[in-house]
Amino acid sequence: MAEANKTVGSGSLLIAWQLKDKTVAIIGGGDVASQRVDSLLATDAQIHVVAPASGLHPRSSTLIAKYSDRVTHIDTEFAFSSSFNLADVKTSETLGANVDLFRYDMVLTALDDADLSRRIVEACRARRIPVNAADIPDLCDFYFGGQVRDGPLQIMISTNGNAPRLAALIKNTIKDSLTGYEGEALVRVGKLRNKLKVRAPGVGGDIGKRRMKWMSGICERWPMKELSELDETTMDWLLDEGWENGKVLDPPKKNSGFSFSSSVLDAGTVVKAGAVALGFLFAHRVLVPYLSSKR
Amino acid sequence: MAEANKTVGSGSLLIAWQLKDKTVAIIGGGDVASQRVDSLLATDAQIHVVAPASGLHPRSSTLIAKYSDRVTHIDTEFAFSSSFNLADVKTSETLGANVDLFRYDMVLTALDDADLSRRIVEACRARRIPVNAADIPDLCDFYFGGQVRDGPLQIMISTNGNAPRLAALIKNTIKDSLTGYEGEALVRVGKLRNKLKVRAPGVGGDIGKRRMKWMSGICERWPMKELSELDETTMDWLLDEGWENGKVLDPPKKNSGFSFSSSVLDAGTVVKAGAVALGFLFAHRVLVPYLSSKR
Repeated sequence: MAEANKTVGSGSLLIAWQLKDKTVAIIGGGDVASQRVDSLLATDAQIHVVAPASGLHPRSSTLIAKYSDRVTHIDTEFAFSSSFNLADVKTSETLGANVDLFRYDMVLTALDDADLSRRIVEACRARRIPVNAADIPDLCDFYFGGQVRDGPLQIMISTNGNAPRLAALIKNTIKDSLTGYEGEALVRVGKLRNKLKVRAPGVGGDIGKRRMKWMSGICERWPMKELSELDETTMDWLLDEGWENGKVLDPPKKNSGFSFSSSVLDAGTVVKAGAVALGFLFAHRVLVPYLSSKR
Repeated sequence: MAEANKTVGSGSLLIAWQLKDKTVAIIGGGDVASQRVDSLLATDAQIHVVAPASGLHPRSSTLIAKYSDRVTHIDTEFAFSSSFNLADVKTSETLGANVDLFRYDMVLTALDDADLSRRIVEACRARRIPVNAADIPDLCDFYFGGQVRDGPLQIMISTNGNAPRLAALIKNTIKDSLTGYEGEALVRVGKLRNKLKVRAPGVGGDIGKRRMKWMSGICERWPMKELSELDETTMDWLLDEGWENGKVLDPPKKNSGFSFSSSVLDAGTVVKAGAVALGFLFAHRVLVPYLSSKR
């Protein structure tokens, strides 16, 4: 398969949408709506769930109650008014409906009524409000995908609609490939970088390059676990003894003698290697003398 | 660290933006602009690069020449006209500038002139055109992140601006965790699913559930490599012998005797296990008789 076929065309633009100080409407309250609430909780958006109380999935109700500072329940079935006219939408002040979608920065529908979904999408589209309609990919400005999160680290896995079960398996593979220290490591390295900027200020130019090179050195030589455990004292030591002397220091040894970082050898490999060594020891101590004695 | 802190708030909404039949403007032609062209080439968008020829980075020039059916070079320095007034932007027919940004579905700036960038963002924002300004995160509707792609599989890694070098390392870890067969496996499984839908048509309900369960079974029991090699003959065999008899068949054995799938055991483990087995063999064949003879 040509490399070009694997990377050019037919894909989506994967982006990290910013929702600070924004409000998002979810039209519907069922299972899919609760998943949308989950996705939005990762951000700082205010979330409005538009659905009659009777139509709320237990998970939706739980999230509305648990995150009452973030999620507002608008207890009504969304409906356009009889005066609604798509042709007017571009110029009218408000949307002709019982909930004014034009107030929102993003609209997500999670409705069983595909026709109603379609009309909502058309109205939002006319006003360029980013919109997603669950289960109607043709109507979506954007899709959701599998997500992995650890603090500031966010990973999205999109298979562009192909094989959902396989997508879930790939997501698990990716999750398993992480050490679990990445999120905290990102936080600590961010702190170290801020400390360095205070000590060696200035934007761009030579000092910017030196800072970047030194920070890269730390990130490359320190295992993820050690980065996630970087405390103030160690940061200051790195800056005093390392940066000031133009050196990238290794993590301080915790025990005397040698130690392998957890990223180099896992427990299973150690056990196997031990068994192999034991095997050779037996062979050497027992087999060789035994064979020698036979000569 | 509380679980809630790791998953709720302060993140972005990671989404897969759809750009089929859309046109995107990149204002600027430098190194960052060429990266934006790269990101957009993954989609089906038409791409307009607005920059004087003299301001094109060699990579930008190469991409414009190589993908002339996708990338259009608008050889001019973007500038607002003297009549431009932000207050009018909401209602005016066109943008007061030498390039009418209102024609575009998305605008990306990659300019050294931060002030010009800011004015472009404000104009786009007033018309709700999704906009990203390189190096000015405060102005962005969305951020870009590290991307991994294999056919229909797209992965985005966002660290929300923390520690770029660490972000690159995490991206490599994720890349390495994949077998390289995922993209093609997604394509083949998609084909199998389509074949199944022809054989057992119907939307939702019992038949939908049965299809989903059977497809999941295949995805779970077949290693990624075997899925990526699924050909028409094998698909028909799976449907004839498996689906029709309510069974999920394993991949046909390629060699007689037993075989481990490559996803279960890698070469290194096999070598180690072999060495361990050899060790035990020596111990058993040599040590036990030797010790027995000593009694």
